[in-house]
Amino acid sequence: LEYVILNLLDKIEYISRQFSKAQHKKFEHYVVTRIWHLLNDLSLKIVTQQYVTRSEGRAMTDLYFPQLQVHIEVDEGFHKKQVELDSLREADIVNATGHEILRVDVTRDIDSINGDIGEIVNKIRNKKSGLTEFKPWDMEAEMSAHTYVEKGFIDLKDDCAFRTIIEALKCFGVNYKGVQFVAIKHPFELDTIIWFPKLYPNDRWDNSITDDELVIKQVSKAPDKAKKHIDDVKSGPYHKRIVFTRVKGPLGDILYRFKGLYGLDIDESNKSDGLVWRRLSGRVKTYRLTL
Amino acid sequence: LEYVILNLLDKIEYISRQFSKAQHKKFEHYVVTRIWHLLNDLSLKIVTQQYVTRSEGRAMTDLYFPQLQVHIEVDEGFHKKQVELDSLREADIVNATGHEILRVDVTRDIDSINGDIGEIVNKIRNKKSGLTEFKPWDMEAEMSAHTYVEKGFIDLKDDCAFRTIIEALKCFGVNYKGVQFVAIKHPFELDTIIWFPKLYPNDRWDNSITDDELVIKQVSKAPDKAKKHIDDVKSGPYHKRIVFTRVKGPLGDILYRFKGLYGLDIDESNKSDGLVWRRLSGRVKTYRLTL
Repeated sequence: LEYVILNLLDKIEYISRQFSKAQHKKFEHYVVTRIWHLLNDLSLKIVTQQYVTRSEGRAMTDLYFPQLQVHIEVDEGFHKKQVELDSLREADIVNATGHEILRVDVTRDIDSINGDIGEIVNKIRNKKSGLTEFKPWDMEAEMSAHTYVEKGFIDLKDDCAFRTIIEALKCFGVNYKGVQFVAIKHPFELDTIIWFPKLYPNDRWDNSITDDELVIKQVSKAPDKAKKHIDDVKSGPYHKRIVFTRVKGPLGDILYRFKGLYGLDIDESNKSDGLVWRRLSGRVKTYRLTL
Repeated sequence: LEYVILNLLDKIEYISRQFSKAQHKKFEHYVVTRIWHLLNDLSLKIVTQQYVTRSEGRAMTDLYFPQLQVHIEVDEGFHKKQVELDSLREADIVNATGHEILRVDVTRDIDSINGDIGEIVNKIRNKKSGLTEFKPWDMEAEMSAHTYVEKGFIDLKDDCAFRTIIEALKCFGVNYKGVQFVAIKHPFELDTIIWFPKLYPNDRWDNSITDDELVIKQVSKAPDKAKKHIDDVKSGPYHKRIVFTRVKGPLGDILYRFKGLYGLDIDESNKSDGLVWRRLSGRVKTYRLTL
């Protein structure tokens, strides 16, 4: 199955689907395709209509270069539509604090717009060549546990997301054929659970993560079981969680997005707030499979 | 009103709408936008999803360069969908006999596809520079009677279509403010009517034009009036018609497309076949407005 997914989604298909998605603004299409084709650089990944968290709040940018942390905004000259909370709920949201935003004013004539896009293309090229460490876009590697096992760790900066829980678990020496649970004991770190939660209100949980992603709250929706669950976790041996949140990726596919290592805040966890998890680290160690 | 239309539809809007339209095939979008952006030539007009008549029958091509008579086909490697007759009925159909068709095979990897598109871009540039007479794309001029009045004639090769009957009539010295009729007497050529028919079955007429566009048949749907209409035209003084057919343009807008000068075939016109008009010329004289 994984083999099929990787093969179906090659670069031409990925880019075509990104282009098709880019058209909530009148000229967004034109700008996005022009930047991509003029850059003419298959080592650069793009995401169109990326949800982001910024100091001003959550928003959507028109074109995102994850490796460069650069976003392009197509500026139509009137006030931007509010991002709908419904579509945001399950979305893959990038924390864009400190990212660079470049704007294209499309209220002028085609020659001026083309001129601006030319400058943006140059800026992107310069940004890439100015990076001390640039990792070319590799669709297979970015979705493969192997990459992170070889590397020895996963860091938030790696922009790491897997298509399946099984693939994510391979980073920690776990080789399951099928997984029905969203929380699995770490085979080597005995105080740690590898956790794949939905970090938004769902059938069983009223979960949330703060915009700065430093705090996760896990609140049960079953009032009779809530207290026992909290007490069990507090008194149990598993006070750390490696978190991959279940999100809808940019093409509508399910992804498990790495969020870091979180630790239980015993004092803050209580019946009304649920379990409170605080981020301990943006980096976790990976392990080879033991045969 | 005309002023507004011209201003609304500038090149950036025209191209953006053409891009948005291009996506009935999976990778059509990618190919169309890449060719356009790499050509980077605002003197070249494009039409996406152009209906054409060829010796093999009617079809739709993915990208059309009217000035060069070159079409691009995105080849997905399986049998092409039949063009739906319904959408074809009112469509603006180009006679593509003798036009050049270039194909892009999108069943391979992105590097090969990009390579092919690079070659196509070079071919298009060479074709343009090899033309003895090249008319740069001018959106205002192509929709303005003035262009043809200055030139002294309209020829089929001019790819001439107007947005309004009023604008078309300005080519023949007629300056009406509003027109309710689809047939107006030519002020200078006394055997000629300027005619703006729907050349497909409609409420009142069962009209048709042959694929080679040499013969138009005009058949009334009102059996009681049909014979009288035929007799009146046969015995009347107007045996020639300058024809602009009413079509749906590539962006869904109404256009009046020049088709040439047609003459009545008196012998072939009868109650069952209706009026039979044969093309006499692909070129008609234009006249200045008399003030």
